[in-house]
Amino acid sequence: MKLLKTRILKDGEIITDQILRVDSFLNHQIDPELIDEIASEFSYKFSDNKFNKILTVESSGIAPAVMTGLKLSIPVVFAKKNKPSTIVENTYNATVHSYTKNSDYDISVSTKYIKRSDHILIIDDFLANGSAARALVSIAEQGGAKVGGIGIIIEKGFQNGGKLLREMGYHIISLAVIESMTGNKIQFRE
Amino acid sequence: MKLLKTRILKDGEIITDQILRVDSFLNHQIDPELIDEIASEFSYKFSDNKFNKILTVESSGIAPAVMTGLKLSIPVVFAKKNKPSTIVENTYNATVHSYTKNSDYDISVSTKYIKRSDHILIIDDFLANGSAARALVSIAEQGGAKVGGIGIIIEKGFQNGGKLLREMGYHIISLAVIESMTGNKIQFRE
Repeated sequence: MKLLKTRILKDGEIITDQILRVDSFLNHQIDPELIDEIASEFSYKFSDNKFNKILTVESSGIAPAVMTGLKLSIPVVFAKKNKPSTIVENTYNATVHSYTKNSDYDISVSTKYIKRSDHILIIDDFLANGSAARALVSIAEQGGAKVGGIGIIIEKGFQNGGKLLREMGYHIISLAVIESMTGNKIQFRE
Repeated sequence: MKLLKTRILKDGEIITDQILRVDSFLNHQIDPELIDEIASEFSYKFSDNKFNKILTVESSGIAPAVMTGLKLSIPVVFAKKNKPSTIVENTYNATVHSYTKNSDYDISVSTKYIKRSDHILIIDDFLANGSAARALVSIAEQGGAKVGGIGIIIEKGFQNGGKLLREMGYHIISLAVIESMTGNKIQFRE
């Protein structure tokens, strides 16, 4: 997605050759017009599939998920972040390891909001090692739902989350795949 | 806002005579079409004002803030929740007391995203005792910005946050004001 890649090159901050900060348009300040374009792209690219629900995780997944949900006319459920081992009743749970912060957190979704008949589109902002995406897949599958697609805004192609999930058979569409960030320069995968 | 009140009556769960749960369309599962209508209402009701930025707080404020931002063509900044006394560099900070959970948390916004020239619209899902709204006002004002309006989806009119903020001179528009929830029955303010 050209508009997104241009914006990453213009406003993304390379913190290390592994960490990209996009706080000015996605993770702290949000550009609603960019998110609207991102949602259009997701709804176009996943238009062959019949989803009835979007699953994301707070907080940065919410904006693109809700805008995509509006275009597809389906509800959005966002997983909540908890401290590890917090007992939350009647929920599906999974643990996410953040490599950036080197810490674990649990995410949970009420059993009320995942049904066996659900055909779910997962949306998230970043895919790196895939820990958050795998946790969302796990939560959907704990509820007996089918994950029909995973839409990612920015995939770090030099980390192995996308590769692993594709090998497991999940249909992933990433709007920008970063091949490398070495030498303070972002290279996208074509 | 009739559509919202109807939805609250249909799907809101009265937990106690102080606590309303709207997890099925706002705080856990989100109905994007309802949020779009809410955003239309905010952009219409605040159309006389010239805002250049929306300020909200993660997570439930993000969806209505971003949809309103799209309609007003202005960016959204969401305050991040931290553990109390977490030192985050180059941020404006304020403490929120959650009466529902009887605990405190800090919220912060990078100094990069609040400017002295900003004319800010605050958007949030609930207004009860007003602790979160006052914290957002404080953050905006720490940055020298002007708070020109506060848009709330559901105000608990029987708690005093709205009254206090109006007495302080803030322009608050709440799309549904609940007068009472006693006897397991929701009464709206006309």
